[in-house]
Amino acid sequence: MSNYKLIVEYEGTNYHGFQIQKGGIITIQGCLEEAIAQIAKKQVKIIGGGRTDAGVHALSQVVNFRSNLTVPVEKLPTALNSLLPKDIRVKTASLVHDDFHSRYDAATKTYLYLIEYGLVESVFKRNYCWWLKKLPVWDNMLTAGKYLEGTQDFAAFTASGSSVKSTVRTISSFDLEVLGNAAKLRFTADGFLYYMVRNMVGTLVEIGLGRRDVDSIKRILKSKDRTQAGVTAPARGLFLEKIQY
Amino acid sequence: MSNYKLIVEYEGTNYHGFQIQKGGIITIQGCLEEAIAQIAKKQVKIIGGGRTDAGVHALSQVVNFRSNLTVPVEKLPTALNSLLPKDIRVKTASLVHDDFHSRYDAATKTYLYLIEYGLVESVFKRNYCWWLKKLPVWDNMLTAGKYLEGTQDFAAFTASGSSVKSTVRTISSFDLEVLGNAAKLRFTADGFLYYMVRNMVGTLVEIGLGRRDVDSIKRILKSKDRTQAGVTAPARGLFLEKIQY
Repeated sequence: MSNYKLIVEYEGTNYHGFQIQKGGIITIQGCLEEAIAQIAKKQVKIIGGGRTDAGVHALSQVVNFRSNLTVPVEKLPTALNSLLPKDIRVKTASLVHDDFHSRYDAATKTYLYLIEYGLVESVFKRNYCWWLKKLPVWDNMLTAGKYLEGTQDFAAFTASGSSVKSTVRTISSFDLEVLGNAAKLRFTADGFLYYMVRNMVGTLVEIGLGRRDVDSIKRILKSKDRTQAGVTAPARGLFLEKIQY
Repeated sequence: MSNYKLIVEYEGTNYHGFQIQKGGIITIQGCLEEAIAQIAKKQVKIIGGGRTDAGVHALSQVVNFRSNLTVPVEKLPTALNSLLPKDIRVKTASLVHDDFHSRYDAATKTYLYLIEYGLVESVFKRNYCWWLKKLPVWDNMLTAGKYLEGTQDFAAFTASGSSVKSTVRTISSFDLEVLGNAAKLRFTADGFLYYMVRNMVGTLVEIGLGRRDVDSIKRILKSKDRTQAGVTAPARGLFLEKIQY
């Protein structure tokens, strides 16, 4: 059996997240497995590098699966794309060593979050950013976001009730790039807790809009209490940008 | 009765064009008239500055209509946007002099066409550009496009069977801007014939891909024969960018 690795781009708007679910719910994983099964002529289970939630997009999701396909690997993107819906595209396919595991082997992941400001929401960006009607102070968001860097307990920023062994993660870098009326927030970490990026972004936006002071982020981290942090930013602005191995 | 002018942005993907049609077909005009009627408490007929076809977008469509609304004009965008689908947005509303007519008063219109090149189509741009798998020679397209400028008979570039008095139009400017793997084509004219922009773009792309020589555009113009020109470029790459009065 060969181990195949795919780099996949998708718009999450019309999907209930990456991970397959019971009950005929449409997911990215489900669509990919169905397309691969048509080529493999049997059911194939894929492993996703990062689990994205409903409405969240990916620029370079990494998946791997074991199979023996008659289609040459260089023809696989075209073959799969002809079977996949237009909002999921396989960008590249390659053969990797047998023990490559797209999730366990991931060293760090980078998530991007787009925010845009304007009086009227752009129809062309409505599924790809969080639209704000008030201009936030980007500089304050950048300063506050820098406090998130490092190895810390992010319990305050994960969805309450989620069960993980440890809520300690290492954010190796945060940055905020301003482009006209928009800003790109970028987080790289060894891993992210459930809703962690969206809860951090929601809190940073409240800081940007002056509803919280810049230093509040330190108190929130220390509290380890979800109710101390801000709102959960909408899924539509979030992109899994890259997984580093 | 006051004369209201709206600047409207829309994504045309899910609409059968701007102009209202019989038989419950969804159109931009239909949606706008329905929203305005809810505020005016009666049917209102709107006039569109440019009629866009099914799947064609607008960055700044101009419409006007006569009514006496109790909603102050500065509140009108917010009021209408709360009633409109998310892919149609009223950007501004203003009161204009009584004889302003968004179509008859238009001096020139500018259309934008987006083309992108790459091995795999981007999911995020799939509704907003013509995706080419071969890289065209942009320079040849620019040179050929320049021959379209001026006052000429564009019969060869209009849909066969369309009935207009004259097929002479004046293209005051054409330009092509390259941005990485993409190009923005921009046409400004006193008016455009049915399918004219898309037929010109289709022909220019065939020139860019080397299927026709650069000078062929002159022979096509002279022929006044639709069968001499190239394919009709897909609707999804076309945007009504601006109407000048």
